[in-house]
Amino acid sequence: MKDFAYYNPTRIEFGKGKEEQMGQYISEYGLKKVLIVYGSERIKKSGLFGKVTKSLDEKGIAYEELGGIISNPVLSKVYEGIELAKSKNVDAILGIGGASVLDSSKAIAAGAVYEGDVWDFFTFKAQSTEALRIFSVMTLAASGSEMNNYAVVTNEETKQKMSIRSTATFPTVSVVNPELQATVTKEYLAYSAADIFAHSLDMYLTATYLPEYIAGYVENILRTVIRTTEVLLEDAGNYEARGEFAWAATNALNFTTNCGVENNRFDTHFIEHTMSAEYNIAHGAGLSIVVPAWMKWQMNLLPDRFARFAKEIFNKDTAEEGIEALKNWYTKIGAPVTLKEGNIPEEGIEMMVEKLFAGAQMLGADALYTKEMLTTVFENAK
Amino acid sequence: MKDFAYYNPTRIEFGKGKEEQMGQYISEYGLKKVLIVYGSERIKKSGLFGKVTKSLDEKGIAYEELGGIISNPVLSKVYEGIELAKSKNVDAILGIGGASVLDSSKAIAAGAVYEGDVWDFFTFKAQSTEALRIFSVMTLAASGSEMNNYAVVTNEETKQKMSIRSTATFPTVSVVNPELQATVTKEYLAYSAADIFAHSLDMYLTATYLPEYIAGYVENILRTVIRTTEVLLEDAGNYEARGEFAWAATNALNFTTNCGVENNRFDTHFIEHTMSAEYNIAHGAGLSIVVPAWMKWQMNLLPDRFARFAKEIFNKDTAEEGIEALKNWYTKIGAPVTLKEGNIPEEGIEMMVEKLFAGAQMLGADALYTKEMLTTVFENAK
Repeated sequence: MKDFAYYNPTRIEFGKGKEEQMGQYISEYGLKKVLIVYGSERIKKSGLFGKVTKSLDEKGIAYEELGGIISNPVLSKVYEGIELAKSKNVDAILGIGGASVLDSSKAIAAGAVYEGDVWDFFTFKAQSTEALRIFSVMTLAASGSEMNNYAVVTNEETKQKMSIRSTATFPTVSVVNPELQATVTKEYLAYSAADIFAHSLDMYLTATYLPEYIAGYVENILRTVIRTTEVLLEDAGNYEARGEFAWAATNALNFTTNCGVENNRFDTHFIEHTMSAEYNIAHGAGLSIVVPAWMKWQMNLLPDRFARFAKEIFNKDTAEEGIEALKNWYTKIGAPVTLKEGNIPEEGIEMMVEKLFAGAQMLGADALYTKEMLTTVFENAK
Repeated sequence: MKDFAYYNPTRIEFGKGKEEQMGQYISEYGLKKVLIVYGSERIKKSGLFGKVTKSLDEKGIAYEELGGIISNPVLSKVYEGIELAKSKNVDAILGIGGASVLDSSKAIAAGAVYEGDVWDFFTFKAQSTEALRIFSVMTLAASGSEMNNYAVVTNEETKQKMSIRSTATFPTVSVVNPELQATVTKEYLAYSAADIFAHSLDMYLTATYLPEYIAGYVENILRTVIRTTEVLLEDAGNYEARGEFAWAATNALNFTTNCGVENNRFDTHFIEHTMSAEYNIAHGAGLSIVVPAWMKWQMNLLPDRFARFAKEIFNKDTAEEGIEALKNWYTKIGAPVTLKEGNIPEEGIEMMVEKLFAGAQMLGADALYTKEMLTTVFENAK
């Protein structure tokens, strides 16, 4: 094991009906007024919003509302939330929704206690060290946002998609109720599976040193995702599979997978962010295209790791067969594996390569993300 | 997955030389004076104590000392620590040592902010909800005490070995430096392996519902313990194996193994505690005797689970063969598997059964821990 620090103070309340205890959880921290952040009005029609606010009412916790958070959440809504949080003197943020809602909640929580512009945290002009307490009810299993301190936000003006990570932006309590996640479409379930795979493989297939213990840990996550996705596509109401899928998603990005590993990278997320920013493709669908294409490039760097992946996950003998098996599995569950299947024009490759390379230069990562490397990955995705 | 709550705020600082940063870690929480709790004077001779106190000096953190903590730590030393902590106005406890030192540190931290008798927490007369902050440098991998909130202490007067668990008794920061754990004897390494196995199997082989994800998670811990123990018995200086062994030990009892499981029990620890209280046997050595003997009794309750264990861990086809393989492995690494090998007289069985049954009655668990069950386990250990 290489040296590492592990810290994750988020309390997970997992199970049926736990959202109805949110008032109780918040009251345990002595808080009196929250800003509820959410996406569409669907959560009001479904009754979820009402269940949570009823639990707040019962504990005498007041609330303000900020709806309308969209996928690839935008900075303008974060500003709106910060303004509300400050003017209404709320003392916590409660996100009800998926990754976009949770990420926005974290950014609002950090911005609400900061005198300057919250975007400073995203552009490394300042480091966030405090935030309002964050609570969440996670309605989609994929991002792991319920148990990490990442928040990804897009600045519409500058067209930058950037992230923050602060010791203060871990949710205090996150509710994970698999029943609330059961309404996802088959399509988005497949994309979610691809997202969890990418979180795992971005580490597993890039780390220059991977302890055997961590390799086995990640393989268990991947096997769980394969098994439960297949069950859920046949039987959306299978609570056990839904629960294990949710917990695998949480564990794939709560920092347990990179304890003791060395030099892991986030290639596929880096590449996909530009793809989904330029074309209207779901993040997970972009990843199911990028990951196998990227693997064909990356396999030469860590051949033994790729052979292990092939054997352990798909019982195949070579790295190539392992990648092919993953592609076939994505196809089987309904996730795209080519640019064409994702409705991304091949003519866009050059433009995406240019944008990605410019981004890589800004991050000082252009020795890795060369135009040649980026072009190869996109060519592999044809 | 069954409903669960997961919460573990301990920050782990893992790696070489991390103990020399202890002053830095403590200063990050604004603390000025600590009580250092430790066992024998060996840590002064080895230089460990000096390294840690040098780091405290550098950050202007004052310290008091309480040495002399023994295995199966006793209440009188906890009282002594509480007295010191109160009279010297320390604002944190720093344990340097193994499980006994850490457990004592937790009890002192809880008792130091309590007006009454700390033993109230152990006997359920009161619930601990606050404590001084706890820091630790863990010198023996086995108990998981570095990343959980358990503290087991023996009251010498009443001869009771009891435990506390409070949200306030998680260490704030624990240093796990595998190099500091490399001086353990081969004998104690084997006992530690048996302890980690027991922590894992007490859950894995008793839960009436075990999610597949968690089963795979625990099997990965068990395989890691087998692999790294064998490496370390041949090559005590193997840092990678030492590190994985340490991290497996931490994860076996940091509450990740029982997320979503139902009705797990702690039979073998329950039984062994009386064995080590009555006879001078190391906890881990007691466990390597009790576990296979108990398995022969338990296997009829969960035959499929035992068959899975046999297959996954030892590639054997039946539950019986799996148990035999575990016994053989314990023998191979030098851990005892019979009462005789542990120097425990068979004449003592009846007395231990009586004591255990009385304990079970006190806990309201005598329907499970019947005299017949307890006798069967000890008879199996002959």
